Amino acid sequence: MSKKYVYFFGGDENEGAADMQNLLGEKGASLVDMASLGIDVPPGFTITTEACNYFFKNDFTLPPTLLGEIRTRLNQLEKKTDSRFGDPENPLFVSVRLGTPFSLPGMGAILNLGFNPETANGFGVKMLDECLALECYARFLTMFGETVLGVKGDYFDAVITRQKEPETPSTGTDRTKAEWQSVLKKIKSLLSKHATSALPVDPMQQLQRAIEMYFRHWKSDTAKALRKFKGTEDDSGVAVTVQAMVFGNKAENSVSGNVFTRSPATGERKLFGEYRVKAQGVGGVINDDFQPIDQLKKDMPEVFESLEKTCQKLENHYQKIQELEFVVDSGKLYFLQTRSGQCTAFSEIKIAVDMVTEGLISKREAVMRVPPERLEQIFHPMVDPKAKIKALGQGLGASPGAAFGKAVFTPEAAQEHADRKEKVILIRAETTPEDIHGMNVAQGILTAKGGMTSHAAVVTRAMGKPCVAACAGLVVDVKRKRAHLNGVMITEKDSITLDGTGGRVIAGEIPLIQPRMTSSFSRLMTLAAEFRKISVRANADTPHDALVAREFGAEGIGLCRTEHMFFNTERILLVRRMILANSEKERGEALKKLLPIQRNDFTEIFKAMEGLPVTIRLLDPPLHEFLSSEPTEVKRLAKELNVSAGTLAKQIASLREINPMLGHRGCRLGMTYPEIYRMQARAILEAAGKLVKKNLRVAPEIMIPLVSHVAEFKRAKQWILEEAEEVQNKSGIKIPFKIGTMIELPRAALTADEIAEEADFFSFGTNDLTQTTLGISRDDSGGFLPYYLEQGVWDDDPFVTLDKKGVGRLIQIGVEKGKLVKKKLQIGICGEHAADTRSIEFFNALEVDYISCSPFRVSSALLGAAQAQIKST
Amino acid sequence: MSKKYVYFFGGDENEGAADMQNLLGEKGASLVDMASLGIDVPPGFTITTEACNYFFKNDFTLPPTLLGEIRTRLNQLEKKTDSRFGDPENPLFVSVRLGTPFSLPGMGAILNLGFNPETANGFGVKMLDECLALECYARFLTMFGETVLGVKGDYFDAVITRQKEPETPSTGTDRTKAEWQSVLKKIKSLLSKHATSALPVDPMQQLQRAIEMYFRHWKSDTAKALRKFKGTEDDSGVAVTVQAMVFGNKAENSVSGNVFTRSPATGERKLFGEYRVKAQGVGGVINDDFQPIDQLKKDMPEVFESLEKTCQKLENHYQKIQELEFVVDSGKLYFLQTRSGQCTAFSEIKIAVDMVTEGLISKREAVMRVPPERLEQIFHPMVDPKAKIKALGQGLGASPGAAFGKAVFTPEAAQEHADRKEKVILIRAETTPEDIHGMNVAQGILTAKGGMTSHAAVVTRAMGKPCVAACAGLVVDVKRKRAHLNGVMITEKDSITLDGTGGRVIAGEIPLIQPRMTSSFSRLMTLAAEFRKISVRANADTPHDALVAREFGAEGIGLCRTEHMFFNTERILLVRRMILANSEKERGEALKKLLPIQRNDFTEIFKAMEGLPVTIRLLDPPLHEFLSSEPTEVKRLAKELNVSAGTLAKQIASLREINPMLGHRGCRLGMTYPEIYRMQARAILEAAGKLVKKNLRVAPEIMIPLVSHVAEFKRAKQWILEEAEEVQNKSGIKIPFKIGTMIELPRAALTADEIAEEADFFSFGTNDLTQTTLGISRDDSGGFLPYYLEQGVWDDDPFVTLDKKGVGRLIQIGVEKGKLVKKKLQIGICGEHAADTRSIEFFNALEVDYISCSPFRVSSALLGAAQAQIKST
Repeated sequence: MSKKYVYFFGGDENEGAADMQNLLGEKGASLVDMASLGIDVPPGFTITTEACNYFFKNDFTLPPTLLGEIRTRLNQLEKKTDSRFGDPENPLFVSVRLGTPFSLPGMGAILNLGFNPETANGFGVKMLDECLALECYARFLTMFGETVLGVKGDYFDAVITRQKEPETPSTGTDRTKAEWQSVLKKIKSLLSKHATSALPVDPMQQLQRAIEMYFRHWKSDTAKALRKFKGTEDDSGVAVTVQAMVFGNKAENSVSGNVFTRSPATGERKLFGEYRVKAQGVGGVINDDFQPIDQLKKDMPEVFESLEKTCQKLENHYQKIQELEFVVDSGKLYFLQTRSGQCTAFSEIKIAVDMVTEGLISKREAVMRVPPERLEQIFHPMVDPKAKIKALGQGLGASPGAAFGKAVFTPEAAQEHADRKEKVILIRAETTPEDIHGMNVAQGILTAKGGMTSHAAVVTRAMGKPCVAACAGLVVDVKRKRAHLNGVMITEKDSITLDGTGGRVIAGEIPLIQPRMTSSFSRLMTLAAEFRKISVRANADTPHDALVAREFGAEGIGLCRTEHMFFNTERILLVRRMILANSEKERGEALKKLLPIQRNDFTEIFKAMEGLPVTIRLLDPPLHEFLSSEPTEVKRLAKELNVSAGTLAKQIASLREINPMLGHRGCRLGMTYPEIYRMQARAILEAAGKLVKKNLRVAPEIMIPLVSHVAEFKRAKQWILEEAEEVQNKSGIKIPFKIGTMIELPRAALTADEIAEEADFFSFGTNDLTQTTLGISRDDSGGFLPYYLEQGVWDDDPFVTLDKKGVGRLIQIGVEKGKLVKKKLQIGICGEHAADTRSIEFFNALEVDYISCSPFRVSSALLGAAQAQIKST
Repeated sequence: MSKKYVYFFGGDENEGAADMQNLLGEKGASLVDMASLGIDVPPGFTITTEACNYFFKNDFTLPPTLLGEIRTRLNQLEKKTDSRFGDPENPLFVSVRLGTPFSLPGMGAILNLGFNPETANGFGVKMLDECLALECYARFLTMFGETVLGVKGDYFDAVITRQKEPETPSTGTDRTKAEWQSVLKKIKSLLSKHATSALPVDPMQQLQRAIEMYFRHWKSDTAKALRKFKGTEDDSGVAVTVQAMVFGNKAENSVSGNVFTRSPATGERKLFGEYRVKAQGVGGVINDDFQPIDQLKKDMPEVFESLEKTCQKLENHYQKIQELEFVVDSGKLYFLQTRSGQCTAFSEIKIAVDMVTEGLISKREAVMRVPPERLEQIFHPMVDPKAKIKALGQGLGASPGAAFGKAVFTPEAAQEHADRKEKVILIRAETTPEDIHGMNVAQGILTAKGGMTSHAAVVTRAMGKPCVAACAGLVVDVKRKRAHLNGVMITEKDSITLDGTGGRVIAGEIPLIQPRMTSSFSRLMTLAAEFRKISVRANADTPHDALVAREFGAEGIGLCRTEHMFFNTERILLVRRMILANSEKERGEALKKLLPIQRNDFTEIFKAMEGLPVTIRLLDPPLHEFLSSEPTEVKRLAKELNVSAGTLAKQIASLREINPMLGHRGCRLGMTYPEIYRMQARAILEAAGKLVKKNLRVAPEIMIPLVSHVAEFKRAKQWILEEAEEVQNKSGIKIPFKIGTMIELPRAALTADEIAEEADFFSFGTNDLTQTTLGISRDDSGGFLPYYLEQGVWDDDPFVTLDKKGVGRLIQIGVEKGKLVKKKLQIGICGEHAADTRSIEFFNALEVDYISCSPFRVSSALLGAAQAQIKST
């Protein structure tokens, strides 16, 4: 027996089932499924993906048995519809559609296939409506012309669309017979002029050509690119569905419509959609004659009731919001398609939790249903999807959300404008820690360089403000205060809008949609908590960040970077004094002034966290990051420090490093300047002591960064213990605290047993650990990493999704060795990976105590952690 | 019974043995050992290190039983010498010496202890020589004054030394009685003026004070520093030896002398040394009345014969060259000390192999005896130790050997002078690959920055020329063509000498001693080969280096860095054209021109190696290393490339990286510019094919650098195989070759099983692997690593001695995983550690196939490998 390439559906003659998407395509499988549920779908058949693959494997020829099979199925269809394909008197027409999960330009549906002068004439006679026949014929020609004969759709638009007169809404359907004849003539003339081959008259030939062309489209460059984007396999093939036509453009009680079973915008439980009276298709050339679905309830109450029942049936069946396409043909309701409805994050969350209440799905299912990264969307403003925009350029959506403001090119200018209460967007080639004060006041950041984990990206995500990084074609000219972007010049104070979610740079001020926190969100978080096993903390450096983090559900601070506290305008001078001090005494004086400032920082953070653990990392970045070598900056600083600019410039230059990432930073600073770490430890402990005295709870965890050798840890620990003893003796108060380290170098992981002997906790810094394990500087990866991802050398960006075989293996070694000597060793994760869903699964399996990410990603991490646990059981 | 603190030696009343150095000190233990062998040593006793430790633990008081014990031992000594300590008529005098393994200023021996006006008088009468008595008294006062009473030695020098008249050699011993009385008076007046306390008259008190002061000295800052330097434990304590005096300054048949059992300079087997007639001690104030030891043979043949016999006895006993101190007291020979003789590397090697021939020691012992690092010394010129030098500064001895030349400050100036056949020393703040042409022509390199593994250090060691790096206080002013070094200005063309072994910078041209390869050296290498298990290859980049490497015994090339071939003046332009090409076509043209040049390089190297394996690493460094951003250089290049300087500068700037070590380099270049790797592979294979055609043997091993993911390796391998197929098809010749990778990133080691599936060999690049595993950039480690070593955070410099727990563990993982999937996988080591003795032990235990180091270190690696194997069995 030869292979079966065609599957029938409709009534009770259904072949195949819902789970045969690979063979029948999404559309074919859903149609057979609906038919099996007893829902009225026009009957038809699906040509399988295997036929498509045969086509490509056999030099663009269809399987020899295919046309015979199709003929047989057409006969079956003719019987069911009581009409005949190509019959001049009682013609059967069909629609042909591609079963792709995404739509492609030039690959739209072909309706009314089977029309030719004879069948058009017969149909007009049969329906007693010549205009209807002519309209359907015209529509068929344009659709076939565009999809199969390669004629641009634009040509037809001018012919088939009528200019709308003001105040007199008109549709394409109220033409006279003569008018339709003229339209048809014009279309035929366009076809003979632009078509790549002749229009077949024989309906069977029309069908064969359509099928072949759909198959061919599947290997077009555009389709390939889209498949890659959607992650569809290249050799999955495509199915083609052929279905008997029903007509929504017959007399008055015919409509075509689209309906969601719930609101895709808000999740509200009522039908949501629109329809057109006496119209074929819902996409189309004229958009302003749509009626809201509620109107149908008034105009055709029985149809509406039937629609509602079917919607409910489908939702119960699929347990997901459905988006349906329907046609009312002379008062009779048909369904052409159903699929999961695409909705906003708000809606998705509400529907998930509502369905639990409705008993439709389990709690587990609700938690699994919302992709964690969607949660981030609901906390950021978005560019209004309805707004007309002019995208000047495209970069990486490095930090989600949207914002607009006036373009500025230096942190100083940002500050100046912000002082005047103006909103600004800071544009830089790339950002450095020196830009922090400018980034602090800007609405958003745009950079020419850097990746998803560049300085700009990491800092803005932590700040919760949008960032577009690595914007292609952006050239920043700081001197002239301007930038060029794809031929457009942006000068200071030009208004621009950043879409940090989509990576777009847009001219002008675009309206934004503001976020809101909903009760559904809270309910989802509560459900997630029932499953979640690991704790989620936030990376927060200021009292404000700490409060934000708690709002999002953070159960502590996993990483408080003390250096960010140093970039404040008033403090930076003290910090610079400390760095450039020529003697321990001078350094000591600067540190003495910094002590009360830091103490106050910590006090406020501890208060905000109300006894939840706060992990504070001692000074980490190379000292030169606090200094600018920009000549005017050097001059200013020299004046402030009362030294010569030349001397200062030399001193600053001597601090520059060839590979700062691997240089004099982290606890290496502590080793060479113990007084800095002592000051920080003292500030933490004094702050904690003060609060304990007031009977407030605090749980400071002091973290020593960049340890590679246990000897480093021991020394720093000793200093902290000495400071603690002094502070406790002085105040007479016992202060609870832990001392631990960041495991962010391979050697630390490999010698974790030695370090665990001394440490109360480990926090794996997966950013730096990734950099050293892979030997890739994230700041310099722009030259090859995008290429690596494109070429599939790396499947995922290792700075986004944890590299399990390399970095993950080291973490595993670290955890195993650490727990071997200290069973109760607290284990945390504090890199960017902490909020990545797939990475969370790994951390969950490792049974870490907590993961810590930026405040705005805490919710998605909470949800991701719950999903990881569910998946693992 | 109370603890025993004093051990007697002399005649047959010996307490203790040679192996009790910890208790008796080196001196005390050797004296009791000599006495036990029947050698004439003046009798005496040693106060143990335990007494010293008691002293410090008990607030600077001696053990209560100690003085009693000493009194008992003095009685024993009095009996043996038939004299009495402090007796005015028949006085016993003693010497007191510290048992340290190193000499300390102000801690010299005290001779003639026991002198006071009464005993001096009695001694004069007894010996019938008042001058002798007065001289000994005077000498005692100066020694006691300096060591115990804190008077500077300089004060006494002026009094006791006589101005030497030209042509009339005179010693301090030919004074008249009146003259000696005057000298004594002056010394006593100096003592009363400068001494910290009064001079004790009672000999027993003198002795107690001397012992206490020696103990105290042990905790002085200088002693502490020296202990640290020598690696002696702080609480090891020090022993004090008290010994009956014998006098080499009696009438004519008395002498004091020093003798080596063989020549410490050449290793020749004959006595070697000098002596003074009628003199006390060999160190001293006047140096020019020494007689060569051969003179003794003529003047006192019987004494000489006895001396020779004892020397032979001691050499047989210790199986090492001995350095003895002896005194002839009125014709009778006494030995005061014996110890292992310090000798040159030449001598050490000759003695070791000679002793095998003489049947004194085993082959195994001979191989174990020579420290491998000493071998390097014999191949480099040395600063003549006899030359009077003025060291301007001190840095790290980064590459051994010595050289002099005129100071220059740019590679261009170096080239210019070299073109005029002038020798130059290149002085730089630090070197970069752009300096290579200057380094090539310079005699030696001096840098202000960088460590033992900085660019300058690594390159010069490979070149075998001296380098002093990280010279403290050196400030280089390139613009003004001068440098400041500790207050001295060095301008262009000033002559300076570098001692790359000792790290000294010396003004002027200092005479150098030239190296020579000896038959003893060859014999040692042959012995080593009998034990050695692992192979040794060289890192060599040119045919010349390859030849040098073979001379030193290299068994292949383990690392041929192709980029070094690119820095040649003619080629660099082509390389720059390739880098800056705007299209694949332009790049292709530049590569086409480079192909024959590279092919020729490889041909010559293969020829030099005559079929031994040659591992060639494909292009590795970041491209910007080939470009200079120095404005005049950019202008020149722009002109040559026919582009604007501005455009070029921007293009060069865009290649700069924040962390080039972790940037776009290694196989990442290959991934983004496959045509470069293809060209290199083709050059290698065509060169090999050419030689195979001539029936010559070749064994190329193509090495892909910086692999972190097997996918990178697979792609590069594919290109190489494609090129190989083409070359082989074209020539019709089968070319033998291997394809492997450098394991130099933690991830590569962690995923070695995946990589081994594809690779023929692994070569562990321990330099980079150390950098990434520890997260330390060797170029930037100067800010903290010296401090780490000083403070003992790291016991060893991890760039010199392999960090076994971290980097070593990764290598172990890599080897295990690799061999698990490919049992015969070839494993090599090609970092700086390959020539470090302790690291070699680790590699030997891992059973790697070979280690590869710079040509000049091959011999020491060969020896080190033999020793490692001997130690492991």
